[in-house]
Amino acid sequence: MVKSFFGANYREVEIGEIVTLARNEPLTLECGVKVSNFPLAFQTYGTLNAKRNNAILVCHALTGDQYLCGTHPVTGKSGWWDRMVGAGKPIDTNRFFVICSNVIGSCLGSFGPKETDPATGKPYGLSFPFITVTDMVKAQALLLDHFGIEKLFAVIGGSMGGMQVLEWATRYPERLHAAAPIATATRQSAQNIAFHEIGRQAIMADPDWCDGEYVAQHKYPAKGLAVARMAAHVTYLSQEMLQEKFGRNLQDREDYTYGFDADFKVESYLRHQGANFVDRFDANSYLYLTRAASYFDLTQGGKIKLTDVFAGTKVRYCVVSFSSDWLYSSVESRNLVRALNAVAANVSFTEINCDKGHDSFLLDVPEFDSVITGFIQGSASLYGVD
Amino acid sequence: MVKSFFGANYREVEIGEIVTLARNEPLTLECGVKVSNFPLAFQTYGTLNAKRNNAILVCHALTGDQYLCGTHPVTGKSGWWDRMVGAGKPIDTNRFFVICSNVIGSCLGSFGPKETDPATGKPYGLSFPFITVTDMVKAQALLLDHFGIEKLFAVIGGSMGGMQVLEWATRYPERLHAAAPIATATRQSAQNIAFHEIGRQAIMADPDWCDGEYVAQHKYPAKGLAVARMAAHVTYLSQEMLQEKFGRNLQDREDYTYGFDADFKVESYLRHQGANFVDRFDANSYLYLTRAASYFDLTQGGKIKLTDVFAGTKVRYCVVSFSSDWLYSSVESRNLVRALNAVAANVSFTEINCDKGHDSFLLDVPEFDSVITGFIQGSASLYGVD
Repeated sequence: MVKSFFGANYREVEIGEIVTLARNEPLTLECGVKVSNFPLAFQTYGTLNAKRNNAILVCHALTGDQYLCGTHPVTGKSGWWDRMVGAGKPIDTNRFFVICSNVIGSCLGSFGPKETDPATGKPYGLSFPFITVTDMVKAQALLLDHFGIEKLFAVIGGSMGGMQVLEWATRYPERLHAAAPIATATRQSAQNIAFHEIGRQAIMADPDWCDGEYVAQHKYPAKGLAVARMAAHVTYLSQEMLQEKFGRNLQDREDYTYGFDADFKVESYLRHQGANFVDRFDANSYLYLTRAASYFDLTQGGKIKLTDVFAGTKVRYCVVSFSSDWLYSSVESRNLVRALNAVAANVSFTEINCDKGHDSFLLDVPEFDSVITGFIQGSASLYGVD
Repeated sequence: MVKSFFGANYREVEIGEIVTLARNEPLTLECGVKVSNFPLAFQTYGTLNAKRNNAILVCHALTGDQYLCGTHPVTGKSGWWDRMVGAGKPIDTNRFFVICSNVIGSCLGSFGPKETDPATGKPYGLSFPFITVTDMVKAQALLLDHFGIEKLFAVIGGSMGGMQVLEWATRYPERLHAAAPIATATRQSAQNIAFHEIGRQAIMADPDWCDGEYVAQHKYPAKGLAVARMAAHVTYLSQEMLQEKFGRNLQDREDYTYGFDADFKVESYLRHQGANFVDRFDANSYLYLTRAASYFDLTQGGKIKLTDVFAGTKVRYCVVSFSSDWLYSSVESRNLVRALNAVAANVSFTEINCDKGHDSFLLDVPEFDSVITGFIQGSASLYGVD
């Protein structure tokens, strides 16, 4: 039982498995801070085979977590990739051992700003060290060491999860056979840096944020976090989908009320998204994780050519983008594929025609399922997974 | 001298000309409220000719105002359309009498929530009646009556200004010869309704908003309004322009600071946009005007067909969109043009290739200048302007 803080109230939430990592040797974060004995929360699905060659690491997006399928302990709903991961599903737990860990910086049991700092006995808050996508991946590598898995069959993830996939494939190319970066980019764009800055400013503008010390002060920046989520949520959907799903439909009324209530269905929907998010996510984690995503750049600010990043890679790549995704558009995926092609990497690229926007990778898109199924089946027979 | 409230301080700001309208007969707003003796602030440029047929009404966008050119009394900068309006410019003040008024609901001298309610001696705040684009245009029509102008040569405007143009052309078709709706739509889309809702929620989340009574309480929701502006500002620019102008460039530093400062230039730029806006715009006006834009729909919620709205029109239309504008995309303009074509209206349509996003109509885009120049010259010779 892990006591966790979600939303405006403390709630006792049972987080699944948690392992303490960096017990012998500290992990040096990119910001220079060394951390030891930090917790990493994870879930596994399926069984590791005798050859230890059937492990798939799934990397979650910004506000995702380790609960791929089954019931989520905080929301009571299904895990975020329930339709992709499970027995007989594209990532088939009858055949593969699937691991997903909560990234460091997040708030579902892993080392993050809402965890208690052993040095003070209080939550870290803003004394939490800054983490990057590289640091997230280094922590995941320690988790694999814990499992005794030398090499993953595949690493798969969308959005910020896709950044982790790219980081895995370029930092530990010998530790994975195949990589599926989905709806992602080799670096955060200016527009996406801007969107994240807006979210952070919305949180920090809330006086109940208390300069990050809201837990100690028994407050919670619910309004600011809700605005941040609303602003982000619009970017996850396409203009077409919003128009088709909501249009100008009114919410339980016949006419405008000439007021600031949620007259339109889309306004009501957004408010609902904001309110739900506040109940399941930590505001400081949102600050740290958006920062980590903004810092992501495989070329390290242009110091390294993108082709040099991938030079000589033996990893099999399956790059996927969605036509209506304007947050991590197909242009970004094409840039990635161009660099991979330039170094003669083994890469397939599919742009899926779909009007559901960035969130397509989380939604019911049969063509996406079949791309992932095909990629896994083909790569697995090549790799010799039983 | 009009005492006006801008930002966190009262400042004495000289607003140009202000006329009191609806002196004999009240104006009935769409929300049902009747208003009398309300102020409308305006500027004029050039001279009305003897035939009274050279008047051009320019309609401003959401946070624009009556200052087209010359020095703006609040910001000290040039007016918002200085490059389009003036002697020898596309909207040539040597030939035309150009009028621009501050829309009702706004905050630069016209009837708006920060003005004093004569009944209470206090600012209206949220007791201000809800206004619509129709109401804005009805107020402008009263201004024309005041000038004794029966028929305008042209009405021109972009974004929410373009909505006013469409409202003019369909509500008072006999009162204008030509109409140029630019970077606009016949109704606010679901996505744009959503963006505006985010802005309002950001303002209303700020405790210094004081349920709209911030003036009386000597407060100002500066943080919330800044977040609202930042969120809106990103939508005014294109992804390409942001990438080209800012990319991942750092702000006066060599490397990441691993902190929440504005490490990236684009973050610094956005914060600057937010801070500047707070000094020149009233938070409650922002609420009311975004509401008005969201309510805009020429089809009245589908009660009227778009083609019926335009049926029999004699107005000459010049529709302009910009290829990288994703807020009011070319798709919206094409829908408008399709309806106009279906009723055999006189319409030209230009989609200008330009990477500057929605704000293109405010920026240096020579092709746009030449489209407006051509439209005005051609229409004026047809209309018989000397």
